[in-house]
Amino acid sequence: MSFPVQPAGQQTVRQHNLALVLAELRRSPGSRAHLAQRTGLTKATVASLVDSLVAQGILDEAEPASSGPGRPARALALDPSGPIGLGIEINVDYLAAGVVDLTGRLRGHRHLPADNRSWPVAKIYAEAVAMAQELLADIGQPLLGVGVAVPAAVNGAGEVVRAPNLPRLAGQRPAEQLAAALSVDDVLVENEANLGALARLWAAPAAGRDFVYVSGEIGVGAGVVVDGRLFRGVHGFAGELGHVVIERNGPPCGCGGRGCLEQYAGQDVLVRTAGQPDLAGLEAAVHRADRRALHAVEQAGAALGVGLSSLLNVLDLPMVVLGGLYSRLFEAITPALTSELSTRVLSSRQASGQVRRSSLGIDAAVRGAAGLIVDRALTEPDRLLAAAAPIDRVSASSGS
Amino acid sequence: MSFPVQPAGQQTVRQHNLALVLAELRRSPGSRAHLAQRTGLTKATVASLVDSLVAQGILDEAEPASSGPGRPARALALDPSGPIGLGIEINVDYLAAGVVDLTGRLRGHRHLPADNRSWPVAKIYAEAVAMAQELLADIGQPLLGVGVAVPAAVNGAGEVVRAPNLPRLAGQRPAEQLAAALSVDDVLVENEANLGALARLWAAPAAGRDFVYVSGEIGVGAGVVVDGRLFRGVHGFAGELGHVVIERNGPPCGCGGRGCLEQYAGQDVLVRTAGQPDLAGLEAAVHRADRRALHAVEQAGAALGVGLSSLLNVLDLPMVVLGGLYSRLFEAITPALTSELSTRVLSSRQASGQVRRSSLGIDAAVRGAAGLIVDRALTEPDRLLAAAAPIDRVSASSGS
Repeated sequence: MSFPVQPAGQQTVRQHNLALVLAELRRSPGSRAHLAQRTGLTKATVASLVDSLVAQGILDEAEPASSGPGRPARALALDPSGPIGLGIEINVDYLAAGVVDLTGRLRGHRHLPADNRSWPVAKIYAEAVAMAQELLADIGQPLLGVGVAVPAAVNGAGEVVRAPNLPRLAGQRPAEQLAAALSVDDVLVENEANLGALARLWAAPAAGRDFVYVSGEIGVGAGVVVDGRLFRGVHGFAGELGHVVIERNGPPCGCGGRGCLEQYAGQDVLVRTAGQPDLAGLEAAVHRADRRALHAVEQAGAALGVGLSSLLNVLDLPMVVLGGLYSRLFEAITPALTSELSTRVLSSRQASGQVRRSSLGIDAAVRGAAGLIVDRALTEPDRLLAAAAPIDRVSASSGS
Repeated sequence: MSFPVQPAGQQTVRQHNLALVLAELRRSPGSRAHLAQRTGLTKATVASLVDSLVAQGILDEAEPASSGPGRPARALALDPSGPIGLGIEINVDYLAAGVVDLTGRLRGHRHLPADNRSWPVAKIYAEAVAMAQELLADIGQPLLGVGVAVPAAVNGAGEVVRAPNLPRLAGQRPAEQLAAALSVDDVLVENEANLGALARLWAAPAAGRDFVYVSGEIGVGAGVVVDGRLFRGVHGFAGELGHVVIERNGPPCGCGGRGCLEQYAGQDVLVRTAGQPDLAGLEAAVHRADRRALHAVEQAGAALGVGLSSLLNVLDLPMVVLGGLYSRLFEAITPALTSELSTRVLSSRQASGQVRRSSLGIDAAVRGAAGLIVDRALTEPDRLLAAAAPIDRVSASSGS
């Protein structure tokens, strides 16, 4: 987009004020008067900002509810038919795509089993792009950008630096490939467990601002949220729960170490130990109380409990949220897990540690990936305006 | 102290400006003109603040160096003969005390072997107080407050909630006991590894703002520093490296778990495995290349490497600083340790992980404890002024 020429200072102030208004509306809808009160901006400033946001399809103005005396105020809210974020997940054995609107709601989701360990990288990208394009065509709203979830460590430059369970992603810069194929400028790449953790934070902000989200897939990862923010570590590699040691002389791991949690509780090991062909088979076997399957799940739960004990003794967090396959096996896996935690975690006797099931299911990472794009657009409104419907320049430049 | 009556707003502004000036002088000494330039305050404001700080013995004004033309500027610096912080350490088998002045320098240190596992708590406090009083009498400068280091988890209220290696401290509130005995208001209690980490940060700020400091004593603890700040966790219990699991079915631990690092690399286990009577004996044996001692230290180093690998895979930090007994055994213990790190830490191939020896030695925790008090006084200058030499009220209230 291009703004009309004006002094940089005014533009900055307007961006700042837009971000204030959008942050308030993210918390809850409200009238112009409420917004002025909550942000401390003048009513005239709020009116100018809001009018342009409504004209650009970013805000939605509800018909006033007819209650009480006087002229009823119209409630403003983020517009679910406004710009959207697209999330793409490239995981070991599937591809997924999802779209999140400005209200944070998942508007569409696709999931495709994929043999990404043997597919050439070009095919992985092509399949992901085709799936995403179908989804975008169905929804037909302006695109803010794309978030990409990968089962890998990603450095600050968006390069995949380690992908033990999907080695052909190593060294890739998925943002470049996908930006070109989807004709978007803004593509962010992030570890899938980190994105699952953000999705959980945004879906249930009242449930807690300090927790570890555990993503159980072929690999085992964790997203660490401290005081409502993702804890990424110095290089972006924090939360590698799958490579916390359970037994130092245990089975060799793809990472080069031995006895890592992934070798006890990862999907491949779990399915194999249970004598099942795949995860669906394992779920069915657990459902019919197959002894071997239940024992395998219990063993995985105990190992997960040992690994999480080490993590919690280091991080001192009060809540564990189980996602991915652990959320699908929640009832069967938690007893052995919580038994280890209560024995081993030092704070467990002082603090009411909680193990919860993620309600987001298999789409957690794409929700987080798409949500990351929406989150950034709402905190940096120039991104939002750039993607929104074009409007009359005069109205865009009025007010402050 | 009592300030002259004046509007709260002015007092707040003055405190804020004092903190600005003190923060600049902490970085490096400078003239009034430099301070005005660096803080953005007017020269008149700086002069008013500085004059009162000099009068109260908080700043020291050096004789001007005679170089160059014009009237040479006098360099101002924090006064080493001004108010001091006292640190007290209550550890499993010793007591220690240390004094840190406003420049951050350790001005005195006492160390006393003590059988705190069998002494009654009252005797522990009495011995610590006597040692501290001797030290304070020797130095004879105004006391800001007392920091107390304990080998234990301390909650936000200063209560010792877990002390597996010194059970009689559990449930204690050392601040209350020591405040009364030493007639000071301000006593802070903190885990000894956390204080060692802060001491390291303050002693070598340029070496890195992201690291884990490992404190090897009877217990094994870690202080985690992220972006120049202590990472304490939600309840203050973060960094419990001693209870990271090495082998889930390993030897039972005092914490109730099994196979914790402390059972492989804690001082008691290490000394016993080496067939030595105590740590001094172990050091001597290592020095003369005693095979059994070297093997015991190597085994402890390998276990420490496994535990640190789990910690680093969770936290993604680029540096490990070894303190306590590990710093005394540094050359003998690091080869096995770094070998485990290079195999197991995922970021080790991308990032140049470093293992360093703490140069602070046995006084790290008391330095951190005393430094915590000095740090707080410099960032909250009303604490500093309250402890400083009383001055004429009129000059204290002038300026802003």
